[in-house]
Amino acid sequence: MKEIPAPSRRRLVLLERLLSTYSGEKITSQKIQELSGWTAAVIRRDISLLEIHCGASNGYKTEDLRKAIEERLNPADEEQKCCIVGLGKIGQTLLNGTALDGSPFKLVAGFDSNVNRTEILRSSFPLHPTTLLESVIEKEGIKYAILTVEKNEAPGIAERLAKCGVRGIVNYTPCVLSVPATTQVEDVCLLTVLETLAAKK
Amino acid sequence: MKEIPAPSRRRLVLLERLLSTYSGEKITSQKIQELSGWTAAVIRRDISLLEIHCGASNGYKTEDLRKAIEERLNPADEEQKCCIVGLGKIGQTLLNGTALDGSPFKLVAGFDSNVNRTEILRSSFPLHPTTLLESVIEKEGIKYAILTVEKNEAPGIAERLAKCGVRGIVNYTPCVLSVPATTQVEDVCLLTVLETLAAKK
Repeated sequence: MKEIPAPSRRRLVLLERLLSTYSGEKITSQKIQELSGWTAAVIRRDISLLEIHCGASNGYKTEDLRKAIEERLNPADEEQKCCIVGLGKIGQTLLNGTALDGSPFKLVAGFDSNVNRTEILRSSFPLHPTTLLESVIEKEGIKYAILTVEKNEAPGIAERLAKCGVRGIVNYTPCVLSVPATTQVEDVCLLTVLETLAAKK
Repeated sequence: MKEIPAPSRRRLVLLERLLSTYSGEKITSQKIQELSGWTAAVIRRDISLLEIHCGASNGYKTEDLRKAIEERLNPADEEQKCCIVGLGKIGQTLLNGTALDGSPFKLVAGFDSNVNRTEILRSSFPLHPTTLLESVIEKEGIKYAILTVEKNEAPGIAERLAKCGVRGIVNYTPCVLSVPATTQVEDVCLLTVLETLAAKK
């Protein structure tokens, strides 16, 4: 199977979500363009990466296409354990949040190097000092980390996360993280995102 | 000039940040790979999009490369006005935050359809009911919006933002936003990002 690059993966993830609420039996790339803002050409190329046949001349069969994306990108629908590292303002919004409800992702641990925070903050899952990072992640089998620590802490923590088997990091810090290719990073720092939007094409 | 696609733009934005703290006079694509996790081939292709010459055989001149990225992506260093739409948990973390300090981006307005929130919340910039969206954005010349409203409100608000001239939307909602090509969207919803990380390559 062809490898699907990250930007296409993100669009396909969103396309699956879009199709799951679309009521028509068929959908054309033109219609998807209208609903998503991606060009029909980009959409057709993304779908071609799935290497499936669900009709393209007069539109894709909506449910077939949705299923094909789901099967290609996410064949196992099992629970995926996540942790938050850094319990400042952004981290705290996730403590009792419902952001991941109804998804396979489940927050099972939070970490902060400030022990006051881990003791005082209330949360629906356990909070630990960052010294316990490796042991908790390994014991729980945590695969994804949401990184919201201070800038100066970020590089070291990212390295530790990668070393103990974390597969993906959602990076809310402005740091460029250096981790081995076995760990993927998605940069979502507000400043980075605004700079990307403002950058000339 | 060649158009630079969004993923390359994001990497170049991060590369510029990385170079600004790198102490060596020269830097190789191999070294950048080590520091960033992107492959040297991807890095060389991104840099080739700048259509500049700052030496590649034994490394790029660090400061020349940094300046070239800055000039190509962001020639005008003027203030860029931003607003937050939706003052729930995520929106509130930005009210008195320092996330954009030292950057050209400046938060100048917040909006929420719940007038209690706009009256009670404390903020370093004015908060308005969403009914005033168009008039405030036009009067202030706001170019970027951080969208953190409820799911059901998101499509309508995105359309209004695009109509009144907002150039870029940072989308914290799980909705796939449909806006004209004159407005760019960056999807940073935690669930979308986790699904992208978890999706099979």
